[in-house]
Amino acid sequence: MANHFGNRYHIQIFGQSHAPSIGAVIEGLPAGFSPDWERVRQFMARRAPGQDAFSTSRKEADLPEILSGLDEKGRTCGAPLAIRIVNGDHHSTDYDKLRDLPRPGHADFTAYTKFNGFHDIRGGGQFSGRLTAPLCFAGALALQLLEQKGIRVSAHIAAIAGVCDKPFNPISPEFTELRDDRFTVLDANKGSEMKQKISEAAKAGDSVGGIIECCAIGLPPGLGDPMFDGIENRIAQMLFAIPAVRGVEFGAGFAASAMTGSAHNDPFVIDNNTVKTSTNHHGGVLGGITTGMPLIVRMAVKPTPSISRKQKTISLNQMCEADLSITGRHDPCIVPRAVPVMEAAIACVLYDLLA
Amino acid sequence: MANHFGNRYHIQIFGQSHAPSIGAVIEGLPAGFSPDWERVRQFMARRAPGQDAFSTSRKEADLPEILSGLDEKGRTCGAPLAIRIVNGDHHSTDYDKLRDLPRPGHADFTAYTKFNGFHDIRGGGQFSGRLTAPLCFAGALALQLLEQKGIRVSAHIAAIAGVCDKPFNPISPEFTELRDDRFTVLDANKGSEMKQKISEAAKAGDSVGGIIECCAIGLPPGLGDPMFDGIENRIAQMLFAIPAVRGVEFGAGFAASAMTGSAHNDPFVIDNNTVKTSTNHHGGVLGGITTGMPLIVRMAVKPTPSISRKQKTISLNQMCEADLSITGRHDPCIVPRAVPVMEAAIACVLYDLLA
Amino acid sequence: MANHFGNRYHIQIFGQSHAPSIGAVIEGLPAGFSPDWERVRQFMARRAPGQDAFSTSRKEADLPEILSGLDEKGRTCGAPLAIRIVNGDHHSTDYDKLRDLPRPGHADFTAYTKFNGFHDIRGGGQFSGRLTAPLCFAGALALQLLEQKGIRVSAHIAAIAGVCDKPFNPISPEFTELRDDRFTVLDANKGSEMKQKISEAAKAGDSVGGIIECCAIGLPPGLGDPMFDGIENRIAQMLFAIPAVRGVEFGAGFAASAMTGSAHNDPFVIDNNTVKTSTNHHGGVLGGITTGMPLIVRMAVKPTPSISRKQKTISLNQMCEADLSITGRHDPCIVPRAVPVMEAAIACVLYDLLA
Amino acid sequence: MANHFGNRYHIQIFGQSHAPSIGAVIEGLPAGFSPDWERVRQFMARRAPGQDAFSTSRKEADLPEILSGLDEKGRTCGAPLAIRIVNGDHHSTDYDKLRDLPRPGHADFTAYTKFNGFHDIRGGGQFSGRLTAPLCFAGALALQLLEQKGIRVSAHIAAIAGVCDKPFNPISPEFTELRDDRFTVLDANKGSEMKQKISEAAKAGDSVGGIIECCAIGLPPGLGDPMFDGIENRIAQMLFAIPAVRGVEFGAGFAASAMTGSAHNDPFVIDNNTVKTSTNHHGGVLGGITTGMPLIVRMAVKPTPSISRKQKTISLNQMCEADLSITGRHDPCIVPRAVPVMEAAIACVLYDLLA
Repeated sequence: MANHFGNRYHIQIFGQSHAPSIGAVIEGLPAGFSPDWERVRQFMARRAPGQDAFSTSRKEADLPEILSGLDEKGRTCGAPLAIRIVNGDHHSTDYDKLRDLPRPGHADFTAYTKFNGFHDIRGGGQFSGRLTAPLCFAGALALQLLEQKGIRVSAHIAAIAGVCDKPFNPISPEFTELRDDRFTVLDANKGSEMKQKISEAAKAGDSVGGIIECCAIGLPPGLGDPMFDGIENRIAQMLFAIPAVRGVEFGAGFAASAMTGSAHNDPFVIDNNTVKTSTNHHGGVLGGITTGMPLIVRMAVKPTPSISRKQKTISLNQMCEADLSITGRHDPCIVPRAVPVMEAAIACVLYDLLA
Repeated sequence: MANHFGNRYHIQIFGQSHAPSIGAVIEGLPAGFSPDWERVRQFMARRAPGQDAFSTSRKEADLPEILSGLDEKGRTCGAPLAIRIVNGDHHSTDYDKLRDLPRPGHADFTAYTKFNGFHDIRGGGQFSGRLTAPLCFAGALALQLLEQKGIRVSAHIAAIAGVCDKPFNPISPEFTELRDDRFTVLDANKGSEMKQKISEAAKAGDSVGGIIECCAIGLPPGLGDPMFDGIENRIAQMLFAIPAVRGVEFGAGFAASAMTGSAHNDPFVIDNNTVKTSTNHHGGVLGGITTGMPLIVRMAVKPTPSISRKQKTISLNQMCEADLSITGRHDPCIVPRAVPVMEAAIACVLYDLLA
Repeated sequence: MANHFGNRYHIQIFGQSHAPSIGAVIEGLPAGFSPDWERVRQFMARRAPGQDAFSTSRKEADLPEILSGLDEKGRTCGAPLAIRIVNGDHHSTDYDKLRDLPRPGHADFTAYTKFNGFHDIRGGGQFSGRLTAPLCFAGALALQLLEQKGIRVSAHIAAIAGVCDKPFNPISPEFTELRDDRFTVLDANKGSEMKQKISEAAKAGDSVGGIIECCAIGLPPGLGDPMFDGIENRIAQMLFAIPAVRGVEFGAGFAASAMTGSAHNDPFVIDNNTVKTSTNHHGGVLGGITTGMPLIVRMAVKPTPSISRKQKTISLNQMCEADLSITGRHDPCIVPRAVPVMEAAIACVLYDLLA
Repeated sequence: MANHFGNRYHIQIFGQSHAPSIGAVIEGLPAGFSPDWERVRQFMARRAPGQDAFSTSRKEADLPEILSGLDEKGRTCGAPLAIRIVNGDHHSTDYDKLRDLPRPGHADFTAYTKFNGFHDIRGGGQFSGRLTAPLCFAGALALQLLEQKGIRVSAHIAAIAGVCDKPFNPISPEFTELRDDRFTVLDANKGSEMKQKISEAAKAGDSVGGIIECCAIGLPPGLGDPMFDGIENRIAQMLFAIPAVRGVEFGAGFAASAMTGSAHNDPFVIDNNTVKTSTNHHGGVLGGITTGMPLIVRMAVKPTPSISRKQKTISLNQMCEADLSITGRHDPCIVPRAVPVMEAAIACVLYDLLA
């Protein structure tokens, strides 16, 4: 089973790119909660396409329609909150051709195999990045509920095409600079370089990938469980639900593999009568459980597999090799739009632990 | 809930480092299966400590005692298979002191917070790496069952202290060189360098980390589910249960973030009437579902937090800073012993999908 | 978590009686399945109200709108199938009064307590019997899929107000007489007596309850699991999701408590080279696992709590006793409409085991 | 998956009647809890066989051995508590004969089918009533934890062989008379009649069944969830894990089916500034959620299928009919020993909701 997640904040996602709708059903919202819908809309707009040169021109309103879960005054009532987002703006295509020629780097072939050829090929079907819109909705609500508990979650583009933003200060992450635009970086100059790389890739009919770094502050110590249900286990399970994610790391992450214990261990200190660590290579988690230090997570995003350059693939019908030219609208880099998706995903996991 | 995992191959792990026993209960074994116990023992011996200069001298027999799950002829019978491993060889210690001074990089502080000071501090309690022994048992059985389906899983040390082994050939991984010893590398010269680094760290009262790469071959295409239940989601959730793991990546992983789409996309080809890819940056998974190409996973292991050098920590009782000297037996590098653990962990996930 | 059920046929239900919509998201349908929508509609019509003297006059079209899960040719595609049923035909009411005076026998008071007064009081909110409509939709699909495997599920009114229909022949249940109308009995004379009882209750401003008996034939032996996951465990968990159900029994059920072992034990016999039993007190299940004999389940349905007679209750605002007169449309007996609901519920459980 | 249950109080049970051990692993115990082991032992003794004329003479010490989960001072430490009970006192038997001739009313045939003949036939294998011993252990701890919250759970024999004890007073159940002996009834005269019935059945080489009624008091209102996760759903799923249970009902249960709404509805009243009901036909649950009134549950227990009278069955090897004479020790009525099992089962469910 694939499309539901969570124990206490339980998300069921549905839809395909060209189905009548996509949407979500959320269980676990506290009764009596009046979401700030304008902030939900703003949050979702950060993910929405079609607004600048760096993303696909597909128009999405992405204004979710509430199907259930509110009372007559617009407050949550303890019933599951269900939403749908109507899929407009489809482009009819020769689906039989798409079904025959699996796109490299896409789920076309694996979906074909798993579903015996009956997968929905239109626009990537259920594997479309569009399915992250209802996840963002669920995350937008979780973010508001976390904020009520003094917890904030924020992400930035850590790298695109090898150009690296400065990392978060792991002791005291810089949140204020963020959230202002649709290309979230800490160092604006690096942001310009990244945009340059994206433009170059787009011109070359190619695409680029990147890394997103996310931080949560205000978490109480003691959150998470040992072994299979630690903070890392849950977050990693969640993040790999985002299309194109290829790696997840916490704190020093892969770099820890080249450090010595004396350099990597974070000394405990007393700060204002609270236990803290003077460095934060552990990324806020020890033994699967929060320490109270900022939670630091990074995820690697592969370059968009849909590129306009001609590629080699095969014909499933004829079992022979074939050339493929992908047309249509595709982001040359999905990293900027994946920034709020990562925030939403992590917010859902954290609220699941706190609901 | 923390100590159980899996849907169809369900593992419940129990124990603390100095409890009477550690063990596991396994549901989902096919009835009528006669495990090759000698191979189970050999597999578990690869993880066991105390056998060479590169691991702690704690003696573990680690021969599991079967509590239930077999019939009178030693075959599985459809009932849960339960085992225990008796914890002998304890060293009595001043637990009150340990309870007061949390070790940097360990779960002492988070366990203290989560369990209100009632955590079992002896030998790391339930956070001890010793808990990977029952996981190895479950994995040893899964490996035999996978082998019956033509699937093999193997891992090697990809890096220690920055010294890198050559990677698996992602199209046709080298399995034959592996499994021979307790320090599994593809390039013996690199292995010698790594051992040198470990020795240096040990002499300096320090420790080093590393990376382990694991591969599974023979997987059918179409395994795994979209979104939250893909191969990556499940494997990542599982691997972060192994103590000291800080990152998980698939295929090109974090390196994909600096590649272009045209370089990263793996062209589909026909090979012997089968769909394959001519490169394997995708690591055998697209859209959470296997392609049939070798599954490639890497995990980052932090340097052992227990080092003999004096470190700075705090006294929880007095809420003041304090010095800490850790005595006792500790691996200066746990990476070599974590190689079979990673194989076991991945075997459990894969068999869960195939049981 | 309350509104989702199943492992391999996973149902997420949402909605409140007066929310914009009610609906369901279903995971686990095989890809390439073309449901017979007319039969779905007919099945759901058996539950729908407003069609005769024995049910509420509320008009429901109950034609579900497909939100996702089908491809361009109307076949399932491996993605979750989501539907909604628009809630029209609301009657505006003085909700504040309803919120103050909990109806005896209803969930008003418990919802008030659980959700701190923020429950949706309109039409019973999420506790409304209307939520069984999406369950019937999920069941209608499951019934078609079970039929493909040679399995049929059918129920009849076993009793209303103490008037008992003849029971199913437990060896060879009578299916053909059923499904013809909206008042499903085996003995038409008993059906007339029951209708008489309902009419009398309605005239008296009162209501009556009953018992429904359901049977599944064609099940293979060996289905179900021991202990917590047997056929009975799963079916019972499911059936108590239907509002007003107060008891569930299998085979001889409560009557078995007064039998001797020699009378209750069903002798095994060979019939046409197949193992059967010559009687069926066990109701098709031994040790939680099917024997291949007809599965026999009965559930007790309490009398509709909404009655027009004046009743005693309390004012939650003033914490004093109060009189309550319930107006509006209410079935004097919900048993007839619950017959297809029971079939749907059991079909969902059975298909969950077979998907 | 069959042998684990619960979300926050998670029980994994293992073992077969003649395996080396049976046991349990429990997650969700609060850290720092020091169980009263003598009370655990006394509770388990109520289920243990071999102590009077009304149960099998098999000797069981049933003193569980703690494998893990306690610290050096005997307190829970947040790690799973694992126990085993060693199976001594086996009687070697001709297992091949047992494997050939399935006992009527037992799981022999269904286990044979499900596990392809590899089931453990010795003493009923994993289907043995002996597996309720670790459930009683888990329940004994849950009962102590519930008691700390002011909640008490108690059961009595409601009927044996048609002889009925007086029922609990549903408003104010009589707890004090109970728990004193191994044949728990409210009306001692009725108890004598029941014992007479058991003796007669035993003499006739036969067996009898019965009904057990259980009550929980002190529950807060608002416990449980709507639809699939209500109090009834969970308790019913749990109770059908007890061998021989054929029906479960709440409050008025099946009798509600013959009542009118005006008689069945329980008027709300104010009592000592608390909302109560003046009658308790609802058995303490409305809409799946507790009202705060006593929770009333009954379960039907079939007559012991193992009887010494000759019975008709079949030979699975020869696929022909055969006679069967069961030898060995069997309770002519398991109802008395199932009383603490029902208490334990319900305590586990309730504590799962409150942990």
